[in-house]
Amino acid sequence: MSDTIKYILPEEKMPANWYNIQADLPKPLAPVLNPGTGEPIGPDDLAPLFPMELIMQEVSQEREIEIPAPVRNVYRQWRPSPLFRARRLEAALDTPAKIYYKNEGVSPAGSHKPNTAVAQAFYNAESGIKKLSTETGAGQWGSSLAFAGALFDLEVRVFMVKVSYNQKPYRRALMETYGGSCIPSPSMETEAGRQILKYDPDSPGSLGIAISEAVEIAATHDDTKYALGSVLNHVLLHQSIIGLEAMSQFEMADDYPDIVIGCAGGGSNFGGIAFPFIGEGLRGGRKVRSIAVEPSACPTMTRGKYAYDFGDTGHLTPLMLCHTLGSTFMPPAFHAGGLRYHGMAPLVSHLVELGEIEPRAVHQNPSFEAGLIFARAEGIVPAPESTHAVRTAIDEALRCKQEGKSETILFNLSGHGHFDMSAYSDYLDGKLTDQDYDHEALAKSLSELPQVG
Amino acid sequence: MSDTIKYILPEEKMPANWYNIQADLPKPLAPVLNPGTGEPIGPDDLAPLFPMELIMQEVSQEREIEIPAPVRNVYRQWRPSPLFRARRLEAALDTPAKIYYKNEGVSPAGSHKPNTAVAQAFYNAESGIKKLSTETGAGQWGSSLAFAGALFDLEVRVFMVKVSYNQKPYRRALMETYGGSCIPSPSMETEAGRQILKYDPDSPGSLGIAISEAVEIAATHDDTKYALGSVLNHVLLHQSIIGLEAMSQFEMADDYPDIVIGCAGGGSNFGGIAFPFIGEGLRGGRKVRSIAVEPSACPTMTRGKYAYDFGDTGHLTPLMLCHTLGSTFMPPAFHAGGLRYHGMAPLVSHLVELGEIEPRAVHQNPSFEAGLIFARAEGIVPAPESTHAVRTAIDEALRCKQEGKSETILFNLSGHGHFDMSAYSDYLDGKLTDQDYDHEALAKSLSELPQVG
Repeated sequence: MSDTIKYILPEEKMPANWYNIQADLPKPLAPVLNPGTGEPIGPDDLAPLFPMELIMQEVSQEREIEIPAPVRNVYRQWRPSPLFRARRLEAALDTPAKIYYKNEGVSPAGSHKPNTAVAQAFYNAESGIKKLSTETGAGQWGSSLAFAGALFDLEVRVFMVKVSYNQKPYRRALMETYGGSCIPSPSMETEAGRQILKYDPDSPGSLGIAISEAVEIAATHDDTKYALGSVLNHVLLHQSIIGLEAMSQFEMADDYPDIVIGCAGGGSNFGGIAFPFIGEGLRGGRKVRSIAVEPSACPTMTRGKYAYDFGDTGHLTPLMLCHTLGSTFMPPAFHAGGLRYHGMAPLVSHLVELGEIEPRAVHQNPSFEAGLIFARAEGIVPAPESTHAVRTAIDEALRCKQEGKSETILFNLSGHGHFDMSAYSDYLDGKLTDQDYDHEALAKSLSELPQVG
Repeated sequence: MSDTIKYILPEEKMPANWYNIQADLPKPLAPVLNPGTGEPIGPDDLAPLFPMELIMQEVSQEREIEIPAPVRNVYRQWRPSPLFRARRLEAALDTPAKIYYKNEGVSPAGSHKPNTAVAQAFYNAESGIKKLSTETGAGQWGSSLAFAGALFDLEVRVFMVKVSYNQKPYRRALMETYGGSCIPSPSMETEAGRQILKYDPDSPGSLGIAISEAVEIAATHDDTKYALGSVLNHVLLHQSIIGLEAMSQFEMADDYPDIVIGCAGGGSNFGGIAFPFIGEGLRGGRKVRSIAVEPSACPTMTRGKYAYDFGDTGHLTPLMLCHTLGSTFMPPAFHAGGLRYHGMAPLVSHLVELGEIEPRAVHQNPSFEAGLIFARAEGIVPAPESTHAVRTAIDEALRCKQEGKSETILFNLSGHGHFDMSAYSDYLDGKLTDQDYDHEALAKSLSELPQVG
């Protein structure tokens, strides 16, 4: 059997700064717009929702932003996370490619989400905030923010998409175990929720609706701010620690990736692992191929439009230029709940447009098949979201085999699948379908994109 | 907020040998007996069930037994496991005690069980065996053996207690994801199972019944051996790596425990962390208090008899001298499924009798309460079994507070609770009871203990 090869970065080599790719963009990001006026919004417009430190990070052009000591201190509980050479997987595939993966499933919440949850909780607590509101789909983000809230004495209220709330009571239990509260969305607690329920009392909810509810709570309560688990620039900034650590670990390995792969729902775990490598290329250093993998049933980058759109269904958010399926688009139910979002991070979308990122879409059955191959070879069960990255890493490794090339592949294992065994159960029982999205509904939601300028 | 203090042992300092406490016992273990003849059994009697290397480990008096390179190689995926100083928990309790915990939840299967599963799979594979049969209650052991089987190309069949099989489909899914197969027990596949079903077609099953089925399969199939996840000497031997690593980590911390705590179902995670420390005391070195914590609803050490008994309900196993509630005792349903066993490891029982181990029983509500306190302070959700150790660590820390003493407490966090969130859900909803065991049934099962000598 092949040797386990694990690269452990000493704690003192954990990055002291996050990496902000905005400093290295050949063309700046388009401004965020006020939907009413069509004018760019300023920091003050966002002040009801976020503490000023996070707003400044959102627009910062500094390449490095210091990680505050209390955040580093919490990170050290599970960071630096290990980088593995997947030797047993390479052997199972009989490929000349070298496959590495960064394991973000080692965090207390089981995914990469605490990297930004802890930072956001810290900045909110520091600015005197006592309560946070947020939304969650499958529950990874909600439980991570509940975890971070427990550490910084913040009351965390999570609006959870109702269908997930009912289907995944153990995710809710995790949030409550950490001391957070969890409300099925749409709810009667907000105007946005009441509007939906008035016309559709049985609405299963959606991430877009839950965002509207969480934003409304923050906008209408002075003691409450809002926290988002992906999409925004500051979230991707916090996740950059994944790629920064990986760069140091590749130095230890005396190797460098040719290909960097992450799954992409809102874009934060992908951006987290890929941006430090893409930035190296943008600054004239070594280039990598970066592949952002989305579900075929929610094909934001591969089938959406690059356009200004809202982040939520209730249209309470500003307008961002991004790849989008339209804020009213409802993707079919599939198990990678963390990838069921109509939009993509503006930074990821921008870099796709600049040709720095290859988007790719894969179906859920081939993804779970890859998850099984990985679990049996490497012993770790990937989260349904992460199986999309595993699928792509395996596909690239098989291409290398066909072409007789020994390329170096890095992917982000964004989380473990221990909370998602019912999805594996469905896969093993042959119950999963590779359901397509509704083409007519997509045409309709794209036709309803807001008109700007 | 208190600093995170984590002791990471460099990979090259991972123990090269397991520790065998039999070498340091002031009085040897009683022999294992043939139930038919009442005579001690020899290695050959066990040969149908186990490969000879494991049988030799079972009776070895050597203090150190080398960990084979392929086993060390797999261990290195997650070992050495981190030792944490629980500074945030100490602050929450406002105690002068120092609390440390060893986190075994970082293994791919989420518990300490792979420490022995990997070793057992290796020795079986090395001796030419192709199939393993075993039993599992809550599923931690079955999934760990399925994981190890995947690595060493062994076909793993797991007899899972039927009530758990039906209640915990995601545990079964984990075994199947690793490529193992999972059969609800009692089943029609064995004579032992058929006998039970004949008289009780709706039998919910028990660990004792499942052991009978797994043993029968191994005893009647030349290509199949049996694997047990706790109780036996060689299992506790393999788990000693936990305590050995902890000793090295305490050297790094320039500290030493006054108290070592582990939960105890069959006794392997407790023995794993405690035996190296107890052995140090037995050899004339520093003494520790060792506390083995069992559920009040299955009080093997605190309410059972120290007597010869069978390991299974069908009476296919040899007789071992141990604390037992009687092999026909059926504990009430509670969530720490890994602690629902009628017997205790002979080594643990022997050391209880010698006064080296303090047994203690705690109820499940106070245990889950402790689990919540721990999760909110330290961010990690303990497995239901592990909450029994957390409860005792907290109780000892609160005693230290009352007495104004700064003792050093070490406990084993044997696994994470991500698979068991339904139990936390029940606790949070106030649905858990501290059900007592059936006193009449216990009196009856104890009266039926086999007569020896």
